Amino acid sequence: MDLKEYVTIVPDYPKKGISFKDISTIMDNGQAYKFATDEIVKFAKEVNTDIIVGPEARGFIIGCPVAYALEVGFAPVRKPGKLPRETIEVEYDLEYGKDTLTIHKDAIKPGQRVLIVDDLLATGGTVGATVELVEKLGGVVAGCAFIIELSYLSGREKLQGYDMRSLITY
Amino acid sequence: MDLKEYVTIVPDYPKKGISFKDISTIMDNGQAYKFATDEIVKFAKEVNTDIIVGPEARGFIIGCPVAYALEVGFAPVRKPGKLPRETIEVEYDLEYGKDTLTIHKDAIKPGQRVLIVDDLLATGGTVGATVELVEKLGGVVAGCAFIIELSYLSGREKLQGYDMRSLITY
Repeated sequence: MDLKEYVTIVPDYPKKGISFKDISTIMDNGQAYKFATDEIVKFAKEVNTDIIVGPEARGFIIGCPVAYALEVGFAPVRKPGKLPRETIEVEYDLEYGKDTLTIHKDAIKPGQRVLIVDDLLATGGTVGATVELVEKLGGVVAGCAFIIELSYLSGREKLQGYDMRSLITY
Repeated sequence: MDLKEYVTIVPDYPKKGISFKDISTIMDNGQAYKFATDEIVKFAKEVNTDIIVGPEARGFIIGCPVAYALEVGFAPVRKPGKLPRETIEVEYDLEYGKDTLTIHKDAIKPGQRVLIVDDLLATGGTVGATVELVEKLGGVVAGCAFIIELSYLSGREKLQGYDMRSLITY
């Protein structure tokens, strides 16, 4: 299956000049969604995964079925104020300004092998912060998996030394 | 498996006097997460499901593995501005004020049988708006499924005439 055929390119979203890669047309197609998930499941098995971590909200759409297929848990990474119990947080740089991501303090046990899953690797800001959260909790980043990688934004450079898989590259 | 044992009660969250039912301790446990998903999958099969719809963000965590297990698609319901293509929207009442939910206009084909999945049924505001979105697009609500139902908030009354399943009731 050529997954790229199921991506919808949305011109000028979220702002003029950006051509947004919309994966919702992968997700609302049962066969394409299953194919994409199973490709990430294969990678997850190669790198020995104990638990999946995904940043909200599209990271949930990809990461959760992977966790189910592997019969492992899923731990969400969210914006501040969204997780009800004790969290740790990491601040990271955006193009203009900063943002913060949080994870429950007890989400990962020290030594657990964590697969980080998100829809898209762009500049790597979100995944970099997620790696930091996982490692602060004593987790081992087994790998990072994405549906789409925008290679011209060089996010891969932020992940040097980590196993990485992306299903579609632009 | 008694799923209730995996729920964490968080006192005074999100505000004083509310005892929050935290399902993250179901999700980060591989066996409990799979059990909860499979229970909803059984219901989804009983009501003949063509596609899953879930409101962000916890609806994704529950609905996405159900979609994967059934090999059907998943269509997200999100806050305004989060979906990149043409949407329809529904406004609904909160305790104080109003909120709006949106769905892609092409997410559901007329006549498709839709299972709406969310983590929690409280007053039924979110699920009521989601039912409205699905029906506006010509979808047939096959049923609504939740991990937790807070029966004392009477959300079930908003779903009269619809098939409904909740795994844990308080």
